[in-house]
Amino acid sequence: MAKSEFDIIKQYFAHQQQQRDDVVLAIGDDCALVDVPANYHVAVSTDSLVAGTHFLADADPALVAYKALASNISDLAAMGATPAWVSLALTLPSIDEAWLAPFCHSFFELANRYNIQLIGGDTTKGPLSITLTVQGLVPQGQALTRGGAQVGDDIYVTGNLGDSAAGLALILNQSQCEPSLAAALVGRHFKAQPRVNVGEALRGIASAALDISDGVIADVKHIGDRSQVAIEIDVEKLPVSVDLLTFCNGDRQQAQQLALTSGEEYELCFTVSKANRDALAMALAHTNVKYSCIGQVTTGRGLSLLQLGKPLSWKLSGWDHFGVTNN
Amino acid sequence: MAKSEFDIIKQYFAHQQQQRDDVVLAIGDDCALVDVPANYHVAVSTDSLVAGTHFLADADPALVAYKALASNISDLAAMGATPAWVSLALTLPSIDEAWLAPFCHSFFELANRYNIQLIGGDTTKGPLSITLTVQGLVPQGQALTRGGAQVGDDIYVTGNLGDSAAGLALILNQSQCEPSLAAALVGRHFKAQPRVNVGEALRGIASAALDISDGVIADVKHIGDRSQVAIEIDVEKLPVSVDLLTFCNGDRQQAQQLALTSGEEYELCFTVSKANRDALAMALAHTNVKYSCIGQVTTGRGLSLLQLGKPLSWKLSGWDHFGVTNN
Repeated sequence: MAKSEFDIIKQYFAHQQQQRDDVVLAIGDDCALVDVPANYHVAVSTDSLVAGTHFLADADPALVAYKALASNISDLAAMGATPAWVSLALTLPSIDEAWLAPFCHSFFELANRYNIQLIGGDTTKGPLSITLTVQGLVPQGQALTRGGAQVGDDIYVTGNLGDSAAGLALILNQSQCEPSLAAALVGRHFKAQPRVNVGEALRGIASAALDISDGVIADVKHIGDRSQVAIEIDVEKLPVSVDLLTFCNGDRQQAQQLALTSGEEYELCFTVSKANRDALAMALAHTNVKYSCIGQVTTGRGLSLLQLGKPLSWKLSGWDHFGVTNN
Repeated sequence: MAKSEFDIIKQYFAHQQQQRDDVVLAIGDDCALVDVPANYHVAVSTDSLVAGTHFLADADPALVAYKALASNISDLAAMGATPAWVSLALTLPSIDEAWLAPFCHSFFELANRYNIQLIGGDTTKGPLSITLTVQGLVPQGQALTRGGAQVGDDIYVTGNLGDSAAGLALILNQSQCEPSLAAALVGRHFKAQPRVNVGEALRGIASAALDISDGVIADVKHIGDRSQVAIEIDVEKLPVSVDLLTFCNGDRQQAQQLALTSGEEYELCFTVSKANRDALAMALAHTNVKYSCIGQVTTGRGLSLLQLGKPLSWKLSGWDHFGVTNN
């Protein structure tokens, strides 16, 4: 007999290895029930991935699952929150177990790694899409918002920037390169590491933070807007990988422009006062995550690009799903 | 200039009237932050509505918004939870303000009525769909689950059953009837009242509860399964409206069959011990919501239909989005 919606849910989603003590009731009732410790905020974030917009309909379901969950975990990391629970709304054109099995395997592997329990969701028929709502916990008063940057703070990013955009160009056949380099860059696009341990370590140290999902040049503007400050980024300070420079045939300017506009990096961008510079170094030492100072918070409004301290006038914009310029 | 994703969010979603004290940070950061009072569970539910599966693509956006939010609130009601927060993932083929404006007006009207604050979400490009994650609060130990029904309990439903199915048949042009009757039944399909006050009143009184989304005959099985008991429903006890009987040209059996299988009713179905019968009457008196005893919890497993105490063998099944029988 054909399998029903309910059978799918039972078979694939109700047997996660990770079981948290704070989940009172998980999948199988009208709601999940969870408990929150005293003196903690709950951090909540929702993101959708839609076939044809965020991934190709024939993309590897394991990579789609990873990307969907990793991008949501990254929002928790950007808040300084520790991941806890996730709800999954999955819309499928038909019941395709050859798609579902690798999707679920990848989803739960990542969820288990970050101590996240699937607590509920919905499985519906329709054009392929995935919407996740992740929740995490952060001590009251220690969340990293976008609104706390102060004039004089340094601006930092984790990891390298630009590899994700190069990987996407390869996936979309807009570029070609040597196979092992292509594999590395495509992997960087699909398999970003959410910086949860960095976010946790930045509690009490960073003045503002967010994750890079639309390109650092677009995202950092949100810190400027919410904190009512101006942002200066020096393109020579942008961390770019050897792989990206090779992909760009050594064209440093092209690599820097990719680093500025590359979306779906899921690196953290954060501001720290100069007084906290040593505390930052100590807090991040144990994470083994590279971080780089890329600029300064200054008086005024807006974003300026510099090159070795001199103004630049590159015309660039961040990724926007509707394909129009964001001003 | 064309409007970007961010402008849409700002314009339509960031100015809700309802502002809750427990929302520390709402829309505009990587996550929302909320606080939970001591000794409360958080109840979480996620549902998707997909154009072409759950509603017609050209359906009135105000009705789509109402249906999406009401069905989610109903899950909280079924748990005995008080609604608090909602996250909205909205996927649209294009930016259509003629669609968005009535959608948002209707969405926020209902959210404000139930003291729910929109705390976040995602707006993406793709085939029209809406995924909501609602959250509510319920005192620890007082949530209404599906697993507590005991042999000897009475089974109740709120309101009337079947009107929603009749309304849907009219919307899909599978049936016709006189215009004012049609308007009433279509309204019943689109504008069910989530039974939040009933759910809250049932805390400490009902042994199990759920809301009727797939048809009472399909939904009540979940209480049977989770509570490891058998369910008997007497079709003569099913509450059917005068409108439904008129729609069925007085055919009582047809009305009862619609009542059994009608999905998206969003009435509550719950079990109460005979010892709590008077407490139930007192608790629900102030809600002004009609409720009817439709059967009994008995020993064994499975669901039996009776008519005036005698076995019936109607072949019926509940709604299943993939259109196959759920066993």
